[in-house]
Amino acid sequence: MSARVLIVDDLYPNVRLLETKLSLEYFDVVVAMNGPDALAICERGACDVVLLDVMMPGMDGFEVCRRLKSNPDTAHLPVVIVTALDQPADRLRGLDAGADDFLTKPIDDTALMTRVRSLVRLKAVTDELRSRALATRALGGIDPLALAAADTGEGANILLVEDRASAIDRIGTALSQHHRVTVETDPHRALVLAPDGGFEVALVSLDLEGFDGLRLCSQLRSLDRTRNLSLIMLGEMGEKTRITRGLDFGVNDYLLRPIDRNELVARVRTQVRRRRFTETLRGALQASMELAVTDDLTGLHNRRYLDRQIGTVFGDAMLHQKGLACLLLDIDRFKLINDTWGHEAGDEVLRAFAERIRQQVRPMDILARYGGEEIVMVVPGVDLPEAQAIAERVRERVEAAPFAVQRGTRDIPVTVSIGVAVRRSTDASPADMLGRADAALYRAKSAGRNRVEAAAA
Amino acid sequence: MSARVLIVDDLYPNVRLLETKLSLEYFDVVVAMNGPDALAICERGACDVVLLDVMMPGMDGFEVCRRLKSNPDTAHLPVVIVTALDQPADRLRGLDAGADDFLTKPIDDTALMTRVRSLVRLKAVTDELRSRALATRALGGIDPLALAAADTGEGANILLVEDRASAIDRIGTALSQHHRVTVETDPHRALVLAPDGGFEVALVSLDLEGFDGLRLCSQLRSLDRTRNLSLIMLGEMGEKTRITRGLDFGVNDYLLRPIDRNELVARVRTQVRRRRFTETLRGALQASMELAVTDDLTGLHNRRYLDRQIGTVFGDAMLHQKGLACLLLDIDRFKLINDTWGHEAGDEVLRAFAERIRQQVRPMDILARYGGEEIVMVVPGVDLPEAQAIAERVRERVEAAPFAVQRGTRDIPVTVSIGVAVRRSTDASPADMLGRADAALYRAKSAGRNRVEAAAA
Repeated sequence: MSARVLIVDDLYPNVRLLETKLSLEYFDVVVAMNGPDALAICERGACDVVLLDVMMPGMDGFEVCRRLKSNPDTAHLPVVIVTALDQPADRLRGLDAGADDFLTKPIDDTALMTRVRSLVRLKAVTDELRSRALATRALGGIDPLALAAADTGEGANILLVEDRASAIDRIGTALSQHHRVTVETDPHRALVLAPDGGFEVALVSLDLEGFDGLRLCSQLRSLDRTRNLSLIMLGEMGEKTRITRGLDFGVNDYLLRPIDRNELVARVRTQVRRRRFTETLRGALQASMELAVTDDLTGLHNRRYLDRQIGTVFGDAMLHQKGLACLLLDIDRFKLINDTWGHEAGDEVLRAFAERIRQQVRPMDILARYGGEEIVMVVPGVDLPEAQAIAERVRERVEAAPFAVQRGTRDIPVTVSIGVAVRRSTDASPADMLGRADAALYRAKSAGRNRVEAAAA
Repeated sequence: MSARVLIVDDLYPNVRLLETKLSLEYFDVVVAMNGPDALAICERGACDVVLLDVMMPGMDGFEVCRRLKSNPDTAHLPVVIVTALDQPADRLRGLDAGADDFLTKPIDDTALMTRVRSLVRLKAVTDELRSRALATRALGGIDPLALAAADTGEGANILLVEDRASAIDRIGTALSQHHRVTVETDPHRALVLAPDGGFEVALVSLDLEGFDGLRLCSQLRSLDRTRNLSLIMLGEMGEKTRITRGLDFGVNDYLLRPIDRNELVARVRTQVRRRRFTETLRGALQASMELAVTDDLTGLHNRRYLDRQIGTVFGDAMLHQKGLACLLLDIDRFKLINDTWGHEAGDEVLRAFAERIRQQVRPMDILARYGGEEIVMVVPGVDLPEAQAIAERVRERVEAAPFAVQRGTRDIPVTVSIGVAVRRSTDASPADMLGRADAALYRAKSAGRNRVEAAAA
């Protein structure tokens, strides 16, 4: 993918050199000559990846990186620290600040381009998710980006695929202080294990006995259920070509042997945070969509959901000539509860009532708040006697024990009236069936409440 | 990105040859020896791209492609038709069936890998969007995938960046029969024009006088506002290297000169459909999230939205010592309207009432249905006299003309009572302000309705 690369360096010749190289590779280049300018450009969302010099007057590169990674609006941006420093301690400082990689000058052009391309591609895949999360934020509620950026990257579930005892010991010991590590020496078993293990990051040796570790990486990246796993390759210095290959097809990062423990911990932490960032966004989006069909007070589905789904269920019952029932439940004298004990107690009763009903339904049933103190249950696959039996059981369960309100200090006895109807072959739409359930409910109320009435089948 | 490639061919040696090549490039290979098997694999979601042979007994490749492209569950899968046929008419049949590309045997390995990689990368970017859309579908409502797959790919807004008169004429004439075409001869102006033109596809000549067309493509692909544009390169046969480069960084497709009109039309149609597919999914997701904060009856925001946003607005007013008012509006004797004219007429009044209020608010105001026939307006930046003036204007507007219901056959006169309150420095939370507005509303009702009452500032 083409992308906008931000070069941050206070020395013009350095900027110029990088700019020329990147431009030749068809990247768009944006330049900042100091830290604050770089932060401003990133906050504006005007770049896709950051190449960051360390030694700058005022705010140094480590500080710029730390700030980018702790800001919800910029935490997703890949950062590569580019510097003349070449001490392990400096690499570590950069990685600890949250950098995705660290390149030392003079820069190896192939390494630079491979890395930038790989980071840009991985970013492109999650950009869509981030755009949707930004839209959610605009609608209010919990800010998914802030939540996602706050993760520490500790306590992850890690899969290590490695068959050398010394490496297992070394890597396992270092990572176990921060994460749960599962070791698998057999790549075939690893492929079976990975989808169900709940892993967040997999480290894969490229030097497995009799098996190409890169192949395992590509398979993990291809399979539906492991596609979102963060992958780190473990390779020898002489395997640059294979490592480039892996980065090209979507492996997230790599470590060269002998593996530095601190660098290992830092790189794994970065991948854990990246993976959790996207998972948090996914979860927030899903929750936001579910909210549209959820009733805030009871947590049941709302009427919108019922209206959407009942047609499908109705059509299905019609097509396969199967039974379909609906139960309309209405708390008896609910207004009296509100008037006597107050609206808050009324809401508590409604919530507890909904929860007690919820325990009575199967996953294929629809349970929705119909309005006020009315709840509707749609039950596929049952006939009228079965539906009546279900309704009677629900009625008994409600009557069986009073509802505790006001933090358990008060018990309110509650009963429910239920109208039952089943689909008839002459019904043109679910509204016909619902209408009969409503009429039956009216009869149950008139006949003294706390009872089940059914419309003829 | 690594990915699962489905090879569809009835001849085992052909399968074996392709499988070996793809496997060496770290693709996962899935095989189908006939059309129905291929369709089943695609429907299960078990592949990312399809390499499809044409000549198969039973169902031929064209038919398989047509079926994949018309099924909402498989329409997003890129299809490359691979065949020994080499007549323009055959290429056209494949492209007309919706194929993304057409490769002739013997296959040029570089061309194959470039194409597959490019299609897989483009797909990876929209896969996330599709996963979210599948989740929306599970929650009911309009199926965004079915909607997206139904588009014909006609009537698009196309940008043609080309400076040769003969090519402009040829391409413009062919495309104008199906789309609106805007021609731009200057690539610099094209870059300025593209973000605001509402274009769906841009065709860019790689042979512009004194400018690298590939650079324009990379810029269009990088910039935020043109990132989702479909791009097609127009190049000479001898420019394969540059074309490969373009496909590598995210250009969607290309055409070689002399440009075949029919192929041009077919390839543009495929890109239009692809782009609209993702745009439809984006729109559906956005709509689904907005639904969570929208009141179904009035189309105003709902209480959930108010609860989420009022804290932010309140905190902002506190921080910047700015005014903040809230107006609580309640239709007078609404129960009487319902009882007299029926619930449907009542709903009509409520909708029309909401619409009339909506016309009175500024974009920064919050307008939400508070429950029943109550609407709340939160107005930042005003003091009490200003808020009272706003309330008085709203009251007059409601009284000024009756509300038409029952398809305009009946006019119902409606009045509104309004309680006004502004934030006090002693308020701990928005609830304090809302409470005063509620008390003021109560006074307005008691004092005879159709009036504005305000709490002291």
